[in-house]
Amino acid sequence: MKKVLITGFDPFGGETINPAYEAVKLLPDEISGAKIIKKEIPTVFQKGPDAVYEEIQSSKPDYVLCIGQAGGRSQVTPEWVGINFRNARIADNEGNQPMQTSVVENGPEAYFTMLPVFRMVEKMKENGIPASVSYTAGTYVCNDVMYSVLHYCHTEFKDVKGGFMHVPFATEQTVNQPAGTPGMNLKDIAKAIELSVEAMLESDTDIKVVSGETH
Amino acid sequence: MKKVLITGFDPFGGETINPAYEAVKLLPDEISGAKIIKKEIPTVFQKGPDAVYEEIQSSKPDYVLCIGQAGGRSQVTPEWVGINFRNARIADNEGNQPMQTSVVENGPEAYFTMLPVFRMVEKMKENGIPASVSYTAGTYVCNDVMYSVLHYCHTEFKDVKGGFMHVPFATEQTVNQPAGTPGMNLKDIAKAIELSVEAMLESDTDIKVVSGETH
Amino acid sequence: MKKVLITGFDPFGGETINPAYEAVKLLPDEISGAKIIKKEIPTVFQKGPDAVYEEIQSSKPDYVLCIGQAGGRSQVTPEWVGINFRNARIADNEGNQPMQTSVVENGPEAYFTMLPVFRMVEKMKENGIPASVSYTAGTYVCNDVMYSVLHYCHTEFKDVKGGFMHVPFATEQTVNQPAGTPGMNLKDIAKAIELSVEAMLESDTDIKVVSGETH
Amino acid sequence: MKKVLITGFDPFGGETINPAYEAVKLLPDEISGAKIIKKEIPTVFQKGPDAVYEEIQSSKPDYVLCIGQAGGRSQVTPEWVGINFRNARIADNEGNQPMQTSVVENGPEAYFTMLPVFRMVEKMKENGIPASVSYTAGTYVCNDVMYSVLHYCHTEFKDVKGGFMHVPFATEQTVNQPAGTPGMNLKDIAKAIELSVEAMLESDTDIKVVSGETH
Repeated sequence: MKKVLITGFDPFGGETINPAYEAVKLLPDEISGAKIIKKEIPTVFQKGPDAVYEEIQSSKPDYVLCIGQAGGRSQVTPEWVGINFRNARIADNEGNQPMQTSVVENGPEAYFTMLPVFRMVEKMKENGIPASVSYTAGTYVCNDVMYSVLHYCHTEFKDVKGGFMHVPFATEQTVNQPAGTPGMNLKDIAKAIELSVEAMLESDTDIKVVSGETH
Repeated sequence: MKKVLITGFDPFGGETINPAYEAVKLLPDEISGAKIIKKEIPTVFQKGPDAVYEEIQSSKPDYVLCIGQAGGRSQVTPEWVGINFRNARIADNEGNQPMQTSVVENGPEAYFTMLPVFRMVEKMKENGIPASVSYTAGTYVCNDVMYSVLHYCHTEFKDVKGGFMHVPFATEQTVNQPAGTPGMNLKDIAKAIELSVEAMLESDTDIKVVSGETH
Repeated sequence: MKKVLITGFDPFGGETINPAYEAVKLLPDEISGAKIIKKEIPTVFQKGPDAVYEEIQSSKPDYVLCIGQAGGRSQVTPEWVGINFRNARIADNEGNQPMQTSVVENGPEAYFTMLPVFRMVEKMKENGIPASVSYTAGTYVCNDVMYSVLHYCHTEFKDVKGGFMHVPFATEQTVNQPAGTPGMNLKDIAKAIELSVEAMLESDTDIKVVSGETH
Repeated sequence: MKKVLITGFDPFGGETINPAYEAVKLLPDEISGAKIIKKEIPTVFQKGPDAVYEEIQSSKPDYVLCIGQAGGRSQVTPEWVGINFRNARIADNEGNQPMQTSVVENGPEAYFTMLPVFRMVEKMKENGIPASVSYTAGTYVCNDVMYSVLHYCHTEFKDVKGGFMHVPFATEQTVNQPAGTPGMNLKDIAKAIELSVEAMLESDTDIKVVSGETH
């Protein structure tokens, strides 16, 4: 039986919930015949990645999909690339605020996702979930986790395929956001994650679709 | 038993669904002890208002709440004012495209809503639905219906209280919209309408809250 | 010689400049053979309108065009309608924060602009300035001035034609605004006002163009 | 005398001008004592990079700053990272539309800018130009040029420092864009480029500032 580790962050930046882990909690324990392992991780530089590392060691999953909140985005966005860069506009949940430093000293500048993200996006769109591949995971703890997990998968856990996906604010979080801020129902976010997992289990080979960003 | 007439438009502008009537269909038949009358109306100048007029005549409701789609808004927005002006950027569903004409010849420039919209907004926000009072219903069929219904309520059906509320795109509609376009789950839109009806049935007197728009 | 009174507000809401009056100051003293009278007015409920009233009395202009800042808009937007409603999300420059009250007790719900706003918009667009007619001037001091000036013109100064136009943030104001906030060079804002005055002096009769807002 | 090569693209995507090269043309021939070499390059995969390559060979500059249009952005945005990925949502100016391919076969996943981008951003902001470091140059010809130029500088022209900067639409381009689309006066874009060149000539060492993106 295949195993998929799915992580979500605890709340940060003044929010009382994080739609990432709230949605992960709503997932079934099995998707397409694979066992789903759910794990909440801290929104803290290094400790976030460390928590995923430990869970990979103990659970030995085939896939790792880390979920983070991208407040302001309207679409569910699997990330294409994690970069070896930390730059925190706000402090993390333990007060760290690194400025223009590396995630992994002497690591490569970037890793590309190991998941079939275009396949995941098409599957979500076919099922009524707005989605697109994103080409920046930012420079905060989300990127820290994405880059680190891909680094672990390339250097140590070579049988594990890793990736990261950002999700919008939950609808109820937008009550106190400026007009125009998109939200998504937590059940739809959970459905988006489930569809993504189905897509990655269908095939490791990605599909080719007209997409991309002019900037 | 009080009666509340709730209308929603058919799809327009290339969309295959209209979240307005889709959400109305999801409403219960009774809210806070009042009977809910649901009616789909055409996205056609004059015919939209006419359909509401006829339903008021036959159903004799105490309240009329007309619902329209405001694609691009993130919040559910009860409208404050309907204006005596038609100006269509796109043709309506029968090909009419009035330019800079009146809704009602010699009618007043505007009518304000007869519903307790600030109370409705607070009730929605307390229940996790992003909402605010809007000060423009546009110049298309939505405004046509709002202005007309208020005109009927002020001149002919003097016991009926009327108003209009815009709702966001349904989430699935945003799949083919530009990134950043907000959507809302149809069940949340239906919940928003239900909460609004509860609020208007609680009291016709509105509440005072810090709100408003600087422009 | 025709006379055009053009007013602009002082800064509010934490801003150190107001592009409205900054741009007005850059205008020539004569446009299309008409004398331009420039006047700064306070961002204060009632006192803003009072200042315009006094200047109309003393200068006896043929036209009054009041300019206000609409931070977040990308286009120069002549306003179509002023409403008899005050609702302040933030305090004005003297600490007043009216909630859901009238501008003029027992005044009509709204006045439509007396200026050829579609003509003004076309002229601006032909000259490279993004522009559109807006259907809400908000519920703050800008709307207070618009509604009041139109009220004065309809009831007392019957030979004067009045109207209001919102302008974007000046580019330099957006340095500390969230990414995505549009700005406009003050010289372009001044050019937009100048083109608008030219358009209104060409003819009081407005043109018909496909335009309008679906909501 | 130091030499700075500054490139800008020709128009693409249905636009009749490209603010990138329009602004480059407005630059002085000398900035902070360095000679400015201006070059228009085609919005074509591979040919864009090739044109920069040839100009580096013939002009032997000390710095290369390539400028591209990022329609929809409000800020001038020096790019942090170029990625080894081509994915074209629209065809380029010769009809090429690569889907999910590499820029340089077997090249590293990404290169980070060689320019002091945080210093450049601070200088622009101090002078009234909205600016921030961006963490995605997209997957179109702009990224193609950025990645390629950095590849050339790391592998062949080791004394040259390269980088890329995106600029907003020119104000006049936004006349036919949806409401809300930011623009910037071409003179302000030119000033932004000039300030950036001044900043990079001051020092190759970057500054540390609180910045970054949570996603």
